[in-house]
Amino acid sequence: MTKKSFPLSEVYRLLEPGPVVLVTTSHRGKANIMTMSWQTMMEFVPPLVGCVISGNNYSFDALRKTKECVLNIPAVDLAKHVVGIGNCSGDKVDKFKKFNLTALPSSQVAAPLIAECYANLECRVVDTRMVNKYNFFVLEVVKAWIDPTMKNPRTLHHQGKGVFMVAGDTIKLPSRMA
Amino acid sequence: MTKKSFPLSEVYRLLEPGPVVLVTTSHRGKANIMTMSWQTMMEFVPPLVGCVISGNNYSFDALRKTKECVLNIPAVDLAKHVVGIGNCSGDKVDKFKKFNLTALPSSQVAAPLIAECYANLECRVVDTRMVNKYNFFVLEVVKAWIDPTMKNPRTLHHQGKGVFMVAGDTIKLPSRMA
Repeated sequence: MTKKSFPLSEVYRLLEPGPVVLVTTSHRGKANIMTMSWQTMMEFVPPLVGCVISGNNYSFDALRKTKECVLNIPAVDLAKHVVGIGNCSGDKVDKFKKFNLTALPSSQVAAPLIAECYANLECRVVDTRMVNKYNFFVLEVVKAWIDPTMKNPRTLHHQGKGVFMVAGDTIKLPSRMA
Repeated sequence: MTKKSFPLSEVYRLLEPGPVVLVTTSHRGKANIMTMSWQTMMEFVPPLVGCVISGNNYSFDALRKTKECVLNIPAVDLAKHVVGIGNCSGDKVDKFKKFNLTALPSSQVAAPLIAECYANLECRVVDTRMVNKYNFFVLEVVKAWIDPTMKNPRTLHHQGKGVFMVAGDTIKLPSRMA
């Protein structure tokens, strides 16, 4: 699969609907993946994303130390991966190997892209002042990639306790909102 | 419609999937509504929600001054209202009147509940340190309400430019995640 560069000014259209994402990090030569749903857009350009990564996650230290990660957006075909990745810790397993996922090199950060995800957002941590109190990181998306063959990806939206809403159809209304 | 109290510890299940919400405020006796999609859960208990409300919105000043709001979650039957509310300013119109919505009194805050929304979260602002730089408010949900007759509400998920994904079906997987 060949990924295409995706305009940074359009990144909000990928994250605003609230999909589950897979966060990749790389620390001391070891890549890891975690499942995340607590994120929001904070700015259009440059695209800023706020997200909560609990200190209980193995990825927390990697993100705090390297200040780099990739937000990979899976579609419904990866639902079992999403749950499996959330159910184990990178402390104990190599998740790329365990879940048979393909790590591709990023262009701007050390953390890898997950080839099987339809979109990938390379990020740098730009604000840590809410990390101590809330585990809340502000990320800047510095490069975005998309699979141009996926026209209407059915994203996953976590409702808690293993229940996921699968993205339904879209409607268009005459909006003046961005 | 009679709303039922909803446990605060379950609030994340309503917001985590990323629905569009209608934010109500009340300032100097005047209630207002705005459409918002840039929010994330930040803590389970007490439920904390981080959200971006642009300084361009009439609601920004009301929220900053009163430190209270309600996050009302609409289902797809209110899609036209959601867009219409986003397309005009409370500076010029009474949105409850214009969109024929019913304001119900909240139990903990001055901002009203929107009766036609299937869930309503009464909130207080608890952290403003990222307001100046990012227009980012941290809210604590102090009371939650739900319409017990709505079993599988089709929420709206904004993809930008007036395109909304309508919540599809749900799947359940053996997750150990909250």
